[in-house]
Amino acid sequence: MHRLYYSPGACSLAPHIVLEEIGIPYALELRSARNAEGTSTPEYLALNPKGRVPALAGMPGSAGGATGLLTEAPAILFFLARSHPEARLLPGDPAAEARCLEWMNWLSGTVHGQSFGQIWRAHRFTADPVQHAAIIAKGEENLGGQYAHIEALLADGRDWAVPGQYSIADPFLLVFWLWGQRIGIEMAGHYPAWARLSARILARPAVQRALEQERVSVAAPPA
Amino acid sequence: MHRLYYSPGACSLAPHIVLEEIGIPYALELRSARNAEGTSTPEYLALNPKGRVPALAGMPGSAGGATGLLTEAPAILFFLARSHPEARLLPGDPAAEARCLEWMNWLSGTVHGQSFGQIWRAHRFTADPVQHAAIIAKGEENLGGQYAHIEALLADGRDWAVPGQYSIADPFLLVFWLWGQRIGIEMAGHYPAWARLSARILARPAVQRALEQERVSVAAPPA
Ligand SMILES: N[C@@H](CCC(=O)N[C@@H](CS)C(=O)NCC(=O)O)C(=O)O
Ligand SMILES: N[C@@H](CCC(=O)N[C@@H](CS)C(=O)NCC(=O)O)C(=O)O
Repeated sequence: MHRLYYSPGACSLAPHIVLEEIGIPYALELRSARNAEGTSTPEYLALNPKGRVPALAGMPGSAGGATGLLTEAPAILFFLARSHPEARLLPGDPAAEARCLEWMNWLSGTVHGQSFGQIWRAHRFTADPVQHAAIIAKGEENLGGQYAHIEALLADGRDWAVPGQYSIADPFLLVFWLWGQRIGIEMAGHYPAWARLSARILARPAVQRALEQERVSVAAPPA
Repeated sequence: MHRLYYSPGACSLAPHIVLEEIGIPYALELRSARNAEGTSTPEYLALNPKGRVPALAGMPGSAGGATGLLTEAPAILFFLARSHPEARLLPGDPAAEARCLEWMNWLSGTVHGQSFGQIWRAHRFTADPVQHAAIIAKGEENLGGQYAHIEALLADGRDWAVPGQYSIADPFLLVFWLWGQRIGIEMAGHYPAWARLSARILARPAVQRALEQERVSVAAPPA
């Protein structure tokens, strides 16, 4: 059985939603990303040296790696979708599948790793606390360009992030909708196409179940 | 036919190697990542609003997206491997395949996007040039931890990045070996397991051809 290490409303929300979509039994284990007792305990670091969530336990042994724990949200999302093709969370066509990966790699590495890293973890980018305000400001500026890029992509009339079907890219994109709200951006006003997509994602029962289990609420965009 | 937008020795080297491994005809188009005439021309930005390499043209239309250009090194690597299964560049087992994605997402988002971003593009993290030195220093410190993590993973006696077979994760890892040399790290001395892997990768004819075409030389680690 899989065990998902998560923190409420963190990027682990996306694999949590996907576990609900698939409908297999799984365990949830809280490791809050907000305090030192969460992802930085010696015990958790021994299991996951990266000290982050999400991480997925219960991988088949053939996968290599000392502990068997799988890290990186896009890798976990892809693994869950690929090993449960009946849930149809990944397009079959290699080009459309690559579009899923393109979304997820950019969201994870650029939007999360760089911009939200700067906004929420400025100390990772400089040892000098005096410089944090400038790093946060630049992160917010970069994020504005990235959110505009997301809106431009979604504004072409497509139904889902990767046109044609709901896929693992959609719950991952929902995380960034939620985070935009968390840092005080008036999301629905600025990003109408993204708002429509978020409303469609939020209407899914699996998404609602995951949000309830994490006790996270997302302000509902106009459908 | 595919066209790969590349810059010599940039992260586009990995998909370039994979195109050589597969052996299909393709076109290479130089967009130097080192100067403003490369990735930031109005003409290139119209094609690829992200203004980066690698980018792959010649995607089948079904993939969605206005221009058809595929971006993000891991997505391009995965697409090439999946649409050419005969080249055997991706494990068939979903868990091992997920390990490839785990490597690539972390290398692209954390090692490249954060640490090398800080070292080579500090202006992306703050608007204040006075702070660049501290951002570069912190990037180098973080990179040290990440390179130690790579060495620890590879030191378990595995043959390739994902144990059991050469995969798209290996040429991507080679890029970071090369970049370590570029910033003056004495790679072979510090990272012996990684050196052995790099020697195995460099011994492949497809890798040699791609390096020659890009006129890039990698100091050969002891085999
Ligand atoms: N590249 C990783 C990043 C994971 C990550 O940074 N997760 C955050 C929560 S969204 C975390 O665990 N933060 C705790 C910390 O940084 O100490 C991924 O995409 O999974
Ligand atoms: N997340 C992207 C990053 C691409 C990237 O930053 N590429 C560099 C070359 S290694 C580039 O084009 N730099 C030019 C610039 O930053 O202006 C990926 O993994 O493909």
